[in-house]
Amino acid sequence: MNKKTLLPPQATVRRLSVYLRYLTQIETEGVKVISSRDLAEKLALNPAQVRKDLAYFGDFGKRGVGYSIDSLRQSIIKILGLEKVRRVGIVGAAGHLGRALACYTGFQKRNFQVVALFDNNPDLIGKNCTACVNAGKILADTDIPRIVKERDIEILILTVPVSAVEDVFRIIIESKVKTVLNFAPYKLISTDNIIVKNVDVTIELESLSYELNRKEQISNTKTAN
Amino acid sequence: MNKKTLLPPQATVRRLSVYLRYLTQIETEGVKVISSRDLAEKLALNPAQVRKDLAYFGDFGKRGVGYSIDSLRQSIIKILGLEKVRRVGIVGAAGHLGRALACYTGFQKRNFQVVALFDNNPDLIGKNCTACVNAGKILADTDIPRIVKERDIEILILTVPVSAVEDVFRIIIESKVKTVLNFAPYKLISTDNIIVKNVDVTIELESLSYELNRKEQISNTKTAN
Repeated sequence: MNKKTLLPPQATVRRLSVYLRYLTQIETEGVKVISSRDLAEKLALNPAQVRKDLAYFGDFGKRGVGYSIDSLRQSIIKILGLEKVRRVGIVGAAGHLGRALACYTGFQKRNFQVVALFDNNPDLIGKNCTACVNAGKILADTDIPRIVKERDIEILILTVPVSAVEDVFRIIIESKVKTVLNFAPYKLISTDNIIVKNVDVTIELESLSYELNRKEQISNTKTAN
Repeated sequence: MNKKTLLPPQATVRRLSVYLRYLTQIETEGVKVISSRDLAEKLALNPAQVRKDLAYFGDFGKRGVGYSIDSLRQSIIKILGLEKVRRVGIVGAAGHLGRALACYTGFQKRNFQVVALFDNNPDLIGKNCTACVNAGKILADTDIPRIVKERDIEILILTVPVSAVEDVFRIIIESKVKTVLNFAPYKLISTDNIIVKNVDVTIELESLSYELNRKEQISNTKTAN
């Protein structure tokens, strides 16, 4: 089987974003070329891992020379489909996290444009969101299918409470949006037509707790010996 | 080499959290036993992956019977070090994301207790945060080393702007806190003493953009043929 026909693992796709950030940063500092070894070292990765990640998508770099930063950056932007604007809606936009995301200027800089805000709080529907003036008035969850079509939304970000996730997801399925980023601590499963990514901040904290626990055990063993 | 002495990959540790959530959910529904196949299916994973993940930590489950949910849950809680309360501080607590995290009740439920809020906005230092009354008054970033020691903080969550990350991280290193969860879109590297996890919401959106791009290319190829 040709290596390039293999689908890359999700972790590889995520690392492309990490490479892109770093390459963009050093390009502004005037660096033109970087070796897989330097790239790996700066990002606390293994050089073989960097080469393997990139090999999924083509032959980049020259042996003994390294990667041309400009050309590798352009390639990653293309692979990730970041040359075009992706239109985003936020569901649960009146909550704390919804507001934080609605006014996060980092999205816009990376070609993700928040074009609609939804919330089921009747006191807020029809009001403007001060955090994200470009996204228009806050709309009801039931408007999702119509607005996804009208505003050509490709990604819905879900920041509703766990208790509301299933009901909202039923409306989202109806909307035929292509992708969903779910922040509620409830694992939504992708359907045939909708790709879902679940983000759970507590999982990150639990991974840190695992590391703390390991350190404690190592230090307990040392004390016991 | 004994399999159990191998360090599990980060992705495996993250999946333990996912297993734990699902097991907790079905235990409340009265389910007592589950097979790796059913567990995998519900979470859109491969059964071999589930078995491999768990095998890093011990021999769970009986061949042909499955895993006892109660006992597997208890084991995962122990592996992740979740039986004890982990004390957390939020740096950049007055920003939108800082506020969202400060008042996120999900942390408390999972034994993560926010016990301190830091921000460098002079108008807010000394004020109470309405979102998280238990964490006390907002403190200056320069107080981090003293407060980490006094309040026995094990995890600092960083939600400051990119421009402030390096300065704040210098103070954090001084504080000797063991772990950091960084939300700023700037990759911080772990030191010998501090384990850093970087969370970048835009990376999740970029992974979705990659999927959208793939779908577009497949549909373009079909149209062309």
